Amino acid sequence: MKIYHFERGGKDGYGFLEGELLRVARGSIAAGFEPGAETVPIGEVRLLAPSVPTKIVAVGVNYKAHALERGRGLPAEPLLFLKPPSALIGPGEAIVHPRASSRVDYEGELALVIGRRASRLGDGDPVEDYSLGYTCFNDVTARDLQDKDVQFTRAKSFDTFAAAGPCIAVGLDSGRLALKTFVNGKLRQSGHTSDLIFPVPVLVRFISRVMTLYPGDLITTGTPSGIGPLRPGDRVDAQIEGIGTLSNHVIMEEGG
Amino acid sequence: MKIYHFERGGKDGYGFLEGELLRVARGSIAAGFEPGAETVPIGEVRLLAPSVPTKIVAVGVNYKAHALERGRGLPAEPLLFLKPPSALIGPGEAIVHPRASSRVDYEGELALVIGRRASRLGDGDPVEDYSLGYTCFNDVTARDLQDKDVQFTRAKSFDTFAAAGPCIAVGLDSGRLALKTFVNGKLRQSGHTSDLIFPVPVLVRFISRVMTLYPGDLITTGTPSGIGPLRPGDRVDAQIEGIGTLSNHVIMEEGG
Repeated sequence: MKIYHFERGGKDGYGFLEGELLRVARGSIAAGFEPGAETVPIGEVRLLAPSVPTKIVAVGVNYKAHALERGRGLPAEPLLFLKPPSALIGPGEAIVHPRASSRVDYEGELALVIGRRASRLGDGDPVEDYSLGYTCFNDVTARDLQDKDVQFTRAKSFDTFAAAGPCIAVGLDSGRLALKTFVNGKLRQSGHTSDLIFPVPVLVRFISRVMTLYPGDLITTGTPSGIGPLRPGDRVDAQIEGIGTLSNHVIMEEGG
Repeated sequence: MKIYHFERGGKDGYGFLEGELLRVARGSIAAGFEPGAETVPIGEVRLLAPSVPTKIVAVGVNYKAHALERGRGLPAEPLLFLKPPSALIGPGEAIVHPRASSRVDYEGELALVIGRRASRLGDGDPVEDYSLGYTCFNDVTARDLQDKDVQFTRAKSFDTFAAAGPCIAVGLDSGRLALKTFVNGKLRQSGHTSDLIFPVPVLVRFISRVMTLYPGDLITTGTPSGIGPLRPGDRVDAQIEGIGTLSNHVIMEEGG
């Protein structure tokens, strides 16, 4: 099942995909969704990022091959960082290349949308009870500033540096998904979530023991090897099995 | 002028301090506040953190003496990190010492409450137009995890690790404020904002060029020297000239 977050006539809503139609849903991420009577062609709405998160929690170095690519050892625990909600964009929106950076990279990732408040989950708690579903995520990163600052925050927090969508896919097995990233149609990353150093349930429990997770919060799970730069004019597609493709294009920051 | 955010009868509101009374305000941080007709004794409400931020932006190593204390050189640019809104607590609330850490430190700081959307401010833009006022902030930090992770996020993101209050003080000169932190009544930090490496207007402009700031967002400006540990049973007071005192006590995380 796929749930789309969309805007139509200045109002946002959610809908279930039925062929080329969205069946408009009642409810919310926190309360749950029920199908309503109305349908609307998916081509007649503007897709939005899948939720309005109170926070975006990200994980660094969570695929073995990417750890090697970045010259790091394998972490003993998940390495957390945050991206601000102000960085979030949806499908089709432009990634703005800041003039402050000379190298802006894509990082295609699998992200989880939290469905229910989660705090201090135990090893036996079923993580799926707290998960609404999965989406594609592009953890855009100013690589030069990341290397300069050591702290990841500035490099990963520019407006438009958190692309998510196109939908929330419900009922996937998070450990059995192929993910690919394309730049201008050329394959740049090809990974599989079976290679995650810390699988999704481990991440959710670990993060929930640090910070309470709220409905709509996003957890993005790290990027496989093959990171590389984006340039103004590029189109980047983050594609995940069972979810779909998140497409964004790159423009240069105005002014300068 | 001092604006207090409070809860009474399950609803939150804002009020202007008049002696021991709060004059209940109409409006919001985004729309601005106007004094209403009703007053309520400040002792009859529960004070809250000054806002419900979409993000909390923090600055590392922004006092010269603290940079030396942490064995770091002076930064050439502000070093940004984020704390999640889920960590925020108000005056009188407990700081919960996680069992995952063996050393939890106080860091008394001056924080700014954003009053108006701010994006890509220029050097000539008057930062005061985007600032509502100032509050006291305790950037609680699991020092052992900070040193272990290198990334600050986990160490600074535990629930209750962002204490703010007791009010929003309007009209202060951010460069001329003495700040002190006390543990169980003993002076532990004594600094002055004239010693900030990057003063508040520089920080706000710098951050606004990375991420759009929204009304209610908090920017906490770094801690002076004298950091040290908190233990269960301790009381910590972050005090700033012209604002007041933010008091919190420390308890141990349950379970374990």
